[in-house]
Amino acid sequence: MKKATQLRGFFYSWCLVARTAYARLGYNAGMGTPQFIIKPRWVIPMDGHQAILEHYAVLVDTGRIRAIVPKTEIPTWASDWPVTDCPQHALLPGLINLHVHSSMNLLKGYADDHALTPWLNEHIWPAERQWVSQFFVRDGSLLACAEMLSGGVTTFNDMYFFPQATIEAVKRCGMRAHIGLVVMEFPTNYAATANDYIRLGTEARDQYKSDAQITFSFAPHAPYTVSNQTFEKLATLAEQLNLGIHTHLHETRTEIQQSMDRFGQRPLARLHALGVIGPQTVLAHGVHLETHELERLATLGAHVAHCPCSNLKLASGIAPVAAALRAGINIGLGTDGAASNNRLDLWQEMRTAALLAKVADDQATSVPAYTALEMATINGARALGLQDQIGSIETGKQADLIAVKLDDLNSLPCFDPVSHLVYVAGREQVTHTWVQGHLRYQRTETGQSVFENMDAEELKSIALQWQLKIQSSHS
Amino acid sequence: MKKATQLRGFFYSWCLVARTAYARLGYNAGMGTPQFIIKPRWVIPMDGHQAILEHYAVLVDTGRIRAIVPKTEIPTWASDWPVTDCPQHALLPGLINLHVHSSMNLLKGYADDHALTPWLNEHIWPAERQWVSQFFVRDGSLLACAEMLSGGVTTFNDMYFFPQATIEAVKRCGMRAHIGLVVMEFPTNYAATANDYIRLGTEARDQYKSDAQITFSFAPHAPYTVSNQTFEKLATLAEQLNLGIHTHLHETRTEIQQSMDRFGQRPLARLHALGVIGPQTVLAHGVHLETHELERLATLGAHVAHCPCSNLKLASGIAPVAAALRAGINIGLGTDGAASNNRLDLWQEMRTAALLAKVADDQATSVPAYTALEMATINGARALGLQDQIGSIETGKQADLIAVKLDDLNSLPCFDPVSHLVYVAGREQVTHTWVQGHLRYQRTETGQSVFENMDAEELKSIALQWQLKIQSSHS
Repeated sequence: MKKATQLRGFFYSWCLVARTAYARLGYNAGMGTPQFIIKPRWVIPMDGHQAILEHYAVLVDTGRIRAIVPKTEIPTWASDWPVTDCPQHALLPGLINLHVHSSMNLLKGYADDHALTPWLNEHIWPAERQWVSQFFVRDGSLLACAEMLSGGVTTFNDMYFFPQATIEAVKRCGMRAHIGLVVMEFPTNYAATANDYIRLGTEARDQYKSDAQITFSFAPHAPYTVSNQTFEKLATLAEQLNLGIHTHLHETRTEIQQSMDRFGQRPLARLHALGVIGPQTVLAHGVHLETHELERLATLGAHVAHCPCSNLKLASGIAPVAAALRAGINIGLGTDGAASNNRLDLWQEMRTAALLAKVADDQATSVPAYTALEMATINGARALGLQDQIGSIETGKQADLIAVKLDDLNSLPCFDPVSHLVYVAGREQVTHTWVQGHLRYQRTETGQSVFENMDAEELKSIALQWQLKIQSSHS
Repeated sequence: MKKATQLRGFFYSWCLVARTAYARLGYNAGMGTPQFIIKPRWVIPMDGHQAILEHYAVLVDTGRIRAIVPKTEIPTWASDWPVTDCPQHALLPGLINLHVHSSMNLLKGYADDHALTPWLNEHIWPAERQWVSQFFVRDGSLLACAEMLSGGVTTFNDMYFFPQATIEAVKRCGMRAHIGLVVMEFPTNYAATANDYIRLGTEARDQYKSDAQITFSFAPHAPYTVSNQTFEKLATLAEQLNLGIHTHLHETRTEIQQSMDRFGQRPLARLHALGVIGPQTVLAHGVHLETHELERLATLGAHVAHCPCSNLKLASGIAPVAAALRAGINIGLGTDGAASNNRLDLWQEMRTAALLAKVADDQATSVPAYTALEMATINGARALGLQDQIGSIETGKQADLIAVKLDDLNSLPCFDPVSHLVYVAGREQVTHTWVQGHLRYQRTETGQSVFENMDAEELKSIALQWQLKIQSSHS
């Protein structure tokens, strides 16, 4: 327990530092003022019309988007609202990371270039057995939240143990999260049996069910770690509690072969028969999907979290994204965990998704830039059932917004901001991240990363402490 | 000529600004001092031994690496040399971009998400016909040099028209370049006939043949734009003048099919028969190579410039990189031009090369991080015949060095710097770029990009001027 106490001390000590950071951030629209105006060069609403609004302003009132008007036509009732000028920026809806194991940021780069089975059996699972605790999850999630916020992600769809510890991180940094309540058959540091997982998950959900920024899914881990009985139970429970389902599906050929051997069915057919697949289901990866399966998913209204970088890194395969979009499936983008990517960077995923789809589909016109942006924004919102709240810049929606600076030397000339956002921009060009109208992250003009409620240097200390501990036991 | 005069005025005006930038850069080792010491956290020599030297220092003397010693064992003769401390950085050899059309930076994002044929016929070639001149090439190359230097590229292998204009940019920014002297059969703004191209190219080479930082290849553009007669002539000339050959090869299936239809041979077989393929040949793309062709290339000692992002974006295909490496072919990395990528970012290429090879080879162990780094450094040097001068950190070699900061929030924890360099780092983490011992680029602690001989703001103005001109004619 000594270690845990030390960590707790560490954790509380930097709360003090965070307040200092808050003070340092100084005045900026969205900081302590419920009404403000953002004036970017371009507004990219992502409302399905492929519009690029040049020289428009977005008016934010008490966490919501109140109006989108030409810069020269600010209504008189807003004439004294403070303004954040973003003269060379694109304003986008906050990005949505549709599949991540956030606390695995503490194992970023811990084991690479291994085949999936030894990677899991010899590296990741032993490390998890040794280290995973509520403190590991909280600290790893804090690092992940910082990485995501600074890269323009405002909402993420998580799946990991100790959900309250992740929620603690989410609440501290002021993001939005959809928490997958993990269920599997085998014991971990978190729970012993499937029923244990369900009980613990349900407790977490009960604790936060009235929190507007936290929503939940049951997350039966994968077809190869969850029994028929548990899947059926979760399908019923999810319906009763109006929760979604988040699971890995058809990630590898091995998974499919094992399912054929054990159940005589491919995992999708099996999960469909068990009542798991529907319009509230998010299927992570979906790499190996045959045409009839794409049609089935479209008919059922299930969503896919496409994770192109992870699928490449673990040699899982290339998902048929263009064909899936044509079939009518809603596809969002996920980073997967930092141990298998190793960046929680939706810009990288957008770019890779667009590039990879062209080769996989044998057409350079497949998944154009705007489609990739949709995958990272409104499609992710749809997958989480939050499309009325987030995912686009529309009047009445939550003010989850990001500004991306497009006038650095590498971004010029700029003929089309949407093309540059996908094919040129890097996450380091995100300068402002607002969640529900609060400026949670800002990259200052002197290149400093400033979080509203976290201190970057203190987070680095936390990461280094864990690095030393994990390294010392590993060597 | 009015436009040209304006541009020239523009060009000379910022020479003054450049001097100011130089002054602003202030004192730093490698600026005006021939002898200095770099003390990074890690030295990654890339000398084939997979070594990571922790707490070593690199001593630079008059443009060359004089010694690599533990930080605590600086020889007495160097005890008063100025020191650049890079306490959280990896020091690497400068990256080598093995295939680029640098001046196409002015067409970055000009036309995306089109199939190759309409992309060329309806967008790129008409734009080139309208705009390409020595001024276009010089200004585009300057932007490309700035993008590459700030991303840690110290040497690039170019292929474009008006080679002196590119060389002018290279000399100004203080990089190293291998200039491909373009030859094709059809007329452009640069030359009218194959013989014209050869004459102009040879003149450029004669003008700079004694320049240590500029080397040359003949660059017959591609199998589908160059006749047998011209290929044979260039093979002979290249041998006489001891120049390399740089050409596109097996980029698309269409190219191969057209060659079969016209010559009854695949392009590689045809070029081999024409005497073009040998140890001084760099073949760009090499996407579609059969097993017997990999063996042939290995036997002939030819080099491949792998351009994974461009090959994806144009839906050209996925090159069999892991198989090619196993066959013994030397493979470097290229970005291709900014119109088909759209970043001149070797970090992106390294990461994509490593990730893509795993899926293409169906093994997560294929092209591990160290191999990707080799492709971007020493393999590129070998391909250009410069392996005795650059590509690794070894005593006696040129001090083409880069420092990459690995302690930002997104890079922690760090269990293995080589993994992080490939799977985590972005080009924005490059803080110092030295070419031949001169600090040509520095990212300051306040996040500013400072070039020794260029002013970033002025370069942005040049890019914007071109953007406005090109846009006005396009709309």
